[in-house]
Amino acid sequence: MKQTIGVVGSGSWATAMIKMLDDNRVDKSVYWWVRNKETAEHIRTYKHNPNYLSAITTKIPKRHIQTDVRTVVSHAGILILNTPAAFLKDALKGVPREALKDKIVVSAIKGIIPDENQIVGDYLQEYYQVPIGRIAVIGGPCHAEEVSSEKLSYLTVASQDTDVAALVASLICTRYIKTIVSDDIYGTEYAAVLKNIYAVAGGICHGVGFGDNFQAVLVSNAIREMADFVNTVHPIQRDIKESAYLGDLLVTAYSQFSRNRTFGNMIGKGYSAKSAQLEMNMVAEGYYASNCIQQICLKYGIDLPICNAVYNVLYQHRSPVLEMKSLADKLT
Amino acid sequence: MKQTIGVVGSGSWATAMIKMLDDNRVDKSVYWWVRNKETAEHIRTYKHNPNYLSAITTKIPKRHIQTDVRTVVSHAGILILNTPAAFLKDALKGVPREALKDKIVVSAIKGIIPDENQIVGDYLQEYYQVPIGRIAVIGGPCHAEEVSSEKLSYLTVASQDTDVAALVASLICTRYIKTIVSDDIYGTEYAAVLKNIYAVAGGICHGVGFGDNFQAVLVSNAIREMADFVNTVHPIQRDIKESAYLGDLLVTAYSQFSRNRTFGNMIGKGYSAKSAQLEMNMVAEGYYASNCIQQICLKYGIDLPICNAVYNVLYQHRSPVLEMKSLADKLT
Repeated sequence: MKQTIGVVGSGSWATAMIKMLDDNRVDKSVYWWVRNKETAEHIRTYKHNPNYLSAITTKIPKRHIQTDVRTVVSHAGILILNTPAAFLKDALKGVPREALKDKIVVSAIKGIIPDENQIVGDYLQEYYQVPIGRIAVIGGPCHAEEVSSEKLSYLTVASQDTDVAALVASLICTRYIKTIVSDDIYGTEYAAVLKNIYAVAGGICHGVGFGDNFQAVLVSNAIREMADFVNTVHPIQRDIKESAYLGDLLVTAYSQFSRNRTFGNMIGKGYSAKSAQLEMNMVAEGYYASNCIQQICLKYGIDLPICNAVYNVLYQHRSPVLEMKSLADKLT
Repeated sequence: MKQTIGVVGSGSWATAMIKMLDDNRVDKSVYWWVRNKETAEHIRTYKHNPNYLSAITTKIPKRHIQTDVRTVVSHAGILILNTPAAFLKDALKGVPREALKDKIVVSAIKGIIPDENQIVGDYLQEYYQVPIGRIAVIGGPCHAEEVSSEKLSYLTVASQDTDVAALVASLICTRYIKTIVSDDIYGTEYAAVLKNIYAVAGGICHGVGFGDNFQAVLVSNAIREMADFVNTVHPIQRDIKESAYLGDLLVTAYSQFSRNRTFGNMIGKGYSAKSAQLEMNMVAEGYYASNCIQQICLKYGIDLPICNAVYNVLYQHRSPVLEMKSLADKLT
């Protein structure tokens, strides 16, 4: 059966997703929701996104580039959500609550829905009544920029129904994308959220003058924190050293492309959160995630020193220098 | 009791060690063995090593800078070995076999003794009959260059006698060096050896054109390989995510200062092992370690795909491109 896939979002990761779907050899039909009318028209005319990864040329037919999200949702058997988490609710505005529950809904979002303090998987279950077995999550380590240049990358597709995960994996694997199927939807999603906070932490530390030696200690503490968190919030058997967890943390914490690290670096150098975001013209998911994870930690009584330090700098306006020095005393 | 410490070696890590001992506040006497007569005379006259980290000024008295290793050994209650592993036997030539057994002997070497295929701890026990409880190992993550610029760093000091480890730690901690005491001498030493091979692997992958996404998958597989190896060779309870293991791997695999990564990168770009070493004017420990670990794996029947791929490229002259592509199919 030929699958119809709808992609919601037009940032760099959504644009990379379009390229994977285009380059994947399985016959399928793809619809793409692009919010901005001028952007959509540009894509229809010139076959590339003018704002992100514009080297990517898409094969999607003109009439499948849509600015009405309801059209894309109504066509799609598989819906891939690919906006920043903070904008998801807005992107799906006008979509009826019962419109998603018979679809496979895939989150390629690495963030938490603000106000709700929920990962996307929980939000989809609760608000849209999508059964958990029909939800999948796509995890890194994968910078969109390297998909654009066809650098070999590995994606983990997680769903409690591994047949669903395998189906989604079969539609996005390409010559340069290897896929790994997992049943740990919660761990994969939380890891993707937490790693953005750790990348902000790494950026702050770099910004205030710590070096590579310290960075390595920070990351080795971060992965232990991540294990503590996911094993408390969703205790199942998992190896946190796998690519979807540790690999995703590494690519975000160490890569030059990481917007969260760049954001943190600006904070460490003295920018305010607001001016750093404006300067970057990109959303640093770690900024929103920091606040949300802080609330979840309070609820579960989990103490995460690194996440805590980032929260204190971003939301309590503590001095990055003093906060990171105090964090350094807690690391091992 | 005032400790007398002898440092054997005059490369960058030995020079950084001298700085830590100088800056540490505990009153002590330090002797420094420097092989080359001109280098020793330069250090006596100008108070810095002309070849490595020459920004570091030492306070060691002129007559404690020695070119006769026996003099340094005879004075030292604590002997810190800090040469490349491949040169240790040569450095200690002329030192009687019974001269070390009443000392605390500390290995700051991250490598395997060639011919013997032994980590330094085993070699010291076997050849010099140093009791295991008098042997300590200093583990990273710590680039010498960052010690020179006083960037905050964490060192792990491991000994089966944790009082010995704590004593050594108390002599090298400074304002910018935090120390962690461990009883896992074997794990710490093997991790330090393996990480150099993984850094070579990372360099080769970079050299042949893989990107950051792949690098993250490689490192997340490497730490699982490292766990397999040390848990087979020396099975005790340990968390491989701690700084001495994962942290040390990260700093070596990701830092611009890593000579092993630089070496691997040149191999990936088509240099021979010999010309890469000549070009760098530094010893890449991972080159020797690769051969040694391969023999140990054969003995224990351990299969380490990444180490194996590096061995095939360095010693079997396989094509880096083909070998890394074949490795990529084995990673998850």
